[in-house]
Amino acid sequence: MIKIYPYGQVSPEEILSRREELPDVSEAVAEIIAAVRREGDDALRRYAREFDKTELEELEVPPEQLDRALDALDPDLRAILEQAADNIRSFHSRQVRNSFVISERDGVILGQKVTPLDRVGLYIPGGTAAYPSTVLMNAIPAKIAGCGEIVMVSPPTCGGDVNPTILAAAKIAGVDRVFRTGGAQGVAALACGTGTIPRVDKIVGPGNTFVAEAKRQVFGQVVIDMIAGPSEILVIADGNSNPATVSADLLSQAEHDKNASAVLITDSTALAGAVQRELEVQLAALPRQEIARASIEHNGKIIVAENLLQGIEIANALAPEHLELCVDNPFDYLDKVRHAGSIFLGRSCPEALGDYLAGPNHTLPTSGTARFSSPLSVDDFVKKSQFTYYTPAALEGVAGKIARFAREEGLEGHARSALSRQETGWKTRKIVSARNESSGIRYKIIEVAQSGAYELWSAHPNGERHLVMRGTKDQVWAEYKKYIHREESR
Amino acid sequence: MIKIYPYGQVSPEEILSRREELPDVSEAVAEIIAAVRREGDDALRRYAREFDKTELEELEVPPEQLDRALDALDPDLRAILEQAADNIRSFHSRQVRNSFVISERDGVILGQKVTPLDRVGLYIPGGTAAYPSTVLMNAIPAKIAGCGEIVMVSPPTCGGDVNPTILAAAKIAGVDRVFRTGGAQGVAALACGTGTIPRVDKIVGPGNTFVAEAKRQVFGQVVIDMIAGPSEILVIADGNSNPATVSADLLSQAEHDKNASAVLITDSTALAGAVQRELEVQLAALPRQEIARASIEHNGKIIVAENLLQGIEIANALAPEHLELCVDNPFDYLDKVRHAGSIFLGRSCPEALGDYLAGPNHTLPTSGTARFSSPLSVDDFVKKSQFTYYTPAALEGVAGKIARFAREEGLEGHARSALSRQETGWKTRKIVSARNESSGIRYKIIEVAQSGAYELWSAHPNGERHLVMRGTKDQVWAEYKKYIHREESR
Repeated sequence: MIKIYPYGQVSPEEILSRREELPDVSEAVAEIIAAVRREGDDALRRYAREFDKTELEELEVPPEQLDRALDALDPDLRAILEQAADNIRSFHSRQVRNSFVISERDGVILGQKVTPLDRVGLYIPGGTAAYPSTVLMNAIPAKIAGCGEIVMVSPPTCGGDVNPTILAAAKIAGVDRVFRTGGAQGVAALACGTGTIPRVDKIVGPGNTFVAEAKRQVFGQVVIDMIAGPSEILVIADGNSNPATVSADLLSQAEHDKNASAVLITDSTALAGAVQRELEVQLAALPRQEIARASIEHNGKIIVAENLLQGIEIANALAPEHLELCVDNPFDYLDKVRHAGSIFLGRSCPEALGDYLAGPNHTLPTSGTARFSSPLSVDDFVKKSQFTYYTPAALEGVAGKIARFAREEGLEGHARSALSRQETGWKTRKIVSARNESSGIRYKIIEVAQSGAYELWSAHPNGERHLVMRGTKDQVWAEYKKYIHREESR
Repeated sequence: MIKIYPYGQVSPEEILSRREELPDVSEAVAEIIAAVRREGDDALRRYAREFDKTELEELEVPPEQLDRALDALDPDLRAILEQAADNIRSFHSRQVRNSFVISERDGVILGQKVTPLDRVGLYIPGGTAAYPSTVLMNAIPAKIAGCGEIVMVSPPTCGGDVNPTILAAAKIAGVDRVFRTGGAQGVAALACGTGTIPRVDKIVGPGNTFVAEAKRQVFGQVVIDMIAGPSEILVIADGNSNPATVSADLLSQAEHDKNASAVLITDSTALAGAVQRELEVQLAALPRQEIARASIEHNGKIIVAENLLQGIEIANALAPEHLELCVDNPFDYLDKVRHAGSIFLGRSCPEALGDYLAGPNHTLPTSGTARFSSPLSVDDFVKKSQFTYYTPAALEGVAGKIARFAREEGLEGHARSALSRQETGWKTRKIVSARNESSGIRYKIIEVAQSGAYELWSAHPNGERHLVMRGTKDQVWAEYKKYIHREESR
């Protein structure tokens, strides 16, 4: 049975249990990655035999198979997936950022250019956890960002095929290519590339311990979205809330994983007791009872606070992945929430609505990282480049300042680089030595300010001037002496 | 002497040399972090004695000392720092994103809320590499983002004080608190907090091998900006470019670090030769000649391409940190550049301009990560939270669809959560059994659809109805039988 605590008796650290015991698979994963890097497609076929119990001929799922999967989909389910995709598209298109350009000062243009990633890899688990919603949530933001190519890998079933609902969702979301490979080897293929699977710039999507460890190990060669921890929900509910719906919402998180955390904070002792009893009732009839019960017993908590603002304080201390505000005027509290991945406002907003249909992303920061991290968004599939343009006159106005600043930092090369554009004409050149040949030609050594270079020039009686050489001080003096010597020895 | 290669003779991987041999300091750093976590300020004082050769009384630099440092600053330098700060502010304020809200469908409100990070930590190196420009570039975007507190750590000199120009820059940039501690222990203090130094959410700023390793190790507890690799510049220059300025620009990168890469791509054999010679001339007179020469000899390259578009192709393959386009119409090429951290357009735009004064950030993605990463920006100091609001009627319209989708994924708890709001009235309740007591009271067992719960109700002759209990099937049947039994035994 879930435990009830008075506010203040459990620390924020204890409230959302974040322990997760994972087996250490780092060596096994390192071996798989090395094999894929070495042997490419052959390694993928071997691992399919070993792990997926299937003999793969073609690694790529032919595009027609995606079309067929969509055509064969139950029409009701297809309509729901398409509505979900529309809602996800509508929400995420509001995240699109434009490049900008600033030209506020004479001769100066500055800007920031937004460019989509060239190629993105999407890992989609197979087997019992085949989630078409994950395909939509990961691929659609990449598509809206304008990524050149979206490549998906998903483990084959023992029949050798990828789950058809996953394929239909991939078609709806606009995935470009799908490959039959999963696990650490699927991640390795995306990160390193193989004969068949192209190398990507970023890998997104959830997965088991092997997939998470593989993402960790390839990070650096490619970028990854995040390593998600166990799912979390914090429900803040007042005394008018229905214990049955509050309990159902808590269980919808708890059924994910025995390490998931479902926590209720309420200002009503009556609701606390009712939810405690109701959870037992609903658990008894839940298909995934075993998982949900382990989660509720180990990590579930009910906190009775003096008022709902204490609940918001706890939410801000925990930065939960999901936060439900089951109260009458939820918008009154929205500004007070500083840290949460996704916030569900009011009594008619179960977290499951966000998992499937509302439109905001369901890939969210866990384990308190919502303090500084964001839900998956279009921003994850673009990057920015800055640009700067100065006219010669604009640079002239600041070159001395750059040089002064650079010298303050002991970086003379930076100073010289800024000043090197100023060497127009002779104004920054100093005559070091000059001597006339009897022919009337005058030789001069010039020290070129800021560059450290010396130049040897000849000035002819007809007014012509020629650069004889440019070099270090020693080189130029040596050459100068040759001319002088020639003169003297004549 | 720098080597010249024809286009195609070196692979993109070889062009920007990215090897960097770093000593393994992970054990030493792990020990320092553990000591700071265990002993807090005492450990910081001990490391100051050991590493910085100074006895620290107060860890915090008093605020008045920042004011005094600014007042004592050379007025020319102060004006330059203030102009740089203004330019950085002006550029970065264009990056600010607003929260948004969408209400396109009846009864549905969706949105994304942008919240600044609560507290940010800024690591600023001391000693010979005391860079006030780094203070401005890191603190100003955090300030514009609206971070609650910006905390800076910087190693003390042997006199016990932080470099006064660093302090003046901190004052100009709006840093809130400054502490005298550096190295791995400074990073550990920001990540874990000590008696004096508050724990932060994110750590930004450059540093030596120890600092980089410490950032790597505390990543997870806090978020970090990036682990920067050696600096890189790629200059694309046509034959009209001045070899002296091109060389000066290459050397401004090379002088940073012997692992830095400076590469020129040109379509002019004449320019290639002239830069090759000129680099030797300028190197001979450069104060940091030893570092710059090592960088040029080991990592420097000149590539002679057939045309400038081949240069852009190479740039896109390399994703360089800095890219200079020394050509007549640089904007003609801007759209073709897909991957670069910061782009300097035209012949009057040395990279040093961007290091100090132009306004765009100088903290840039290195080692090819500009393919998927961005310069430091206001975005690094905010995070987003999503929110969703549905009215009861809006949820009613989609609850069945959510349930269908959730069941497709095998998550019955999610389906029940969505449907739990529909149990208004009796329409989703099924009478399982009913029996009249002789008193005229009728008892009914009701199966509550979607929740797995059963209810026992009593209906009285006067029309009143009471919920006797709610529970699992077995619990409710047991209670029902008691009433029936009482009746039968009467």
